[in-house]
Amino acid sequence: MLTIATILFENFETLDVFGPIEVLGRFPEYFDPEFYSTTGGVVTSTQKVPVVTRPIYEFQKEDYAILIPGGIGTRTLVEDRNTVGSLAELAREAEYILTVCTGSVLFSKTGLLDGKRATSNKRAFSWATKESPKVNWIKKSRWVRDGNSYTSSGVSAGIDLAFGFVSDLLGHDIAMRESAVIEYDWKDDPAWDTFSELY
Amino acid sequence: MLTIATILFENFETLDVFGPIEVLGRFPEYFDPEFYSTTGGVVTSTQKVPVVTRPIYEFQKEDYAILIPGGIGTRTLVEDRNTVGSLAELAREAEYILTVCTGSVLFSKTGLLDGKRATSNKRAFSWATKESPKVNWIKKSRWVRDGNSYTSSGVSAGIDLAFGFVSDLLGHDIAMRESAVIEYDWKDDPAWDTFSELY
Repeated sequence: MLTIATILFENFETLDVFGPIEVLGRFPEYFDPEFYSTTGGVVTSTQKVPVVTRPIYEFQKEDYAILIPGGIGTRTLVEDRNTVGSLAELAREAEYILTVCTGSVLFSKTGLLDGKRATSNKRAFSWATKESPKVNWIKKSRWVRDGNSYTSSGVSAGIDLAFGFVSDLLGHDIAMRESAVIEYDWKDDPAWDTFSELY
Repeated sequence: MLTIATILFENFETLDVFGPIEVLGRFPEYFDPEFYSTTGGVVTSTQKVPVVTRPIYEFQKEDYAILIPGGIGTRTLVEDRNTVGSLAELAREAEYILTVCTGSVLFSKTGLLDGKRATSNKRAFSWATKESPKVNWIKKSRWVRDGNSYTSSGVSAGIDLAFGFVSDLLGHDIAMRESAVIEYDWKDDPAWDTFSELY
């Protein structure tokens, strides 16, 4: 059982979180979604979804992945040493780090993506490369795995990343079958990315 | 400004709600998402997302749409007269009714879909037709509009429905542009439905 420690902050992007949580939460025998924030309490997305969270300092699990969404909130958090510090601490002991959209830029500030391949939101790509030039940013890719880190493109790409993660851990057939159950047109090839050329 | 009165219940399906809310919430000058449940308080999805809601009896808005998700929770709620009654009351005054997945089956128990075209989750389709045989259920369609009701296929199809709704209200170009912003491969033709033949 892998706890999915989802890190929320004010003005996270709704689908960045709940796309992957929909997918992973469909396998309750393998993944256990939990929601954390710096101080706990109710955290609200840019699209006004109020979610109940626990404080990060209460987190203590042995087997866990962290899920870091993107959104407007990341624009200021990249400068916040406390947040970046606690992400680094959590990430060092995590089995996997999953980021969606500009969550990869926030995570990159820990330095733990330096020298690794990663991707991000295509409209925010120049911001990503400017913030963390030591990351090997890959523009044309729906999602990127490097070691234990999975980073995705913008917003809805988090769903594809989650199926890619399920495919790696539980098998491709299981991922493909479940994508059909939720009637999602999953492209199982991470190189599929028609959006990288738009911006 | 149209309030999106989102009706939550225990064991709603996560993406049924937050797919459409992601899309509609990106137009804060037109749509205002709010979350309601029978008694208010924290309501948790099947994928363990705890959302803060207000009680339905406090709802009073003039211009609003209701959004009804699906999920395991609908299986018992279709028999719950209080829930069905309050949905009927809300729906009669609503500008629009949006349902995702088996949310259409729950909504159909109000009788307000009788004689109208509608769709639902493809794996639950025989349940839908059995529960409400007077509805003109359309199997092969990603989403269906009939009058002021929009019903979608399973789970991720709620995203397509929401873009269809945006297209009808704000224009096709705006819907298509925003789908690219969230890097979503929106099929703007509701007849696109590869899942209807799977089950």
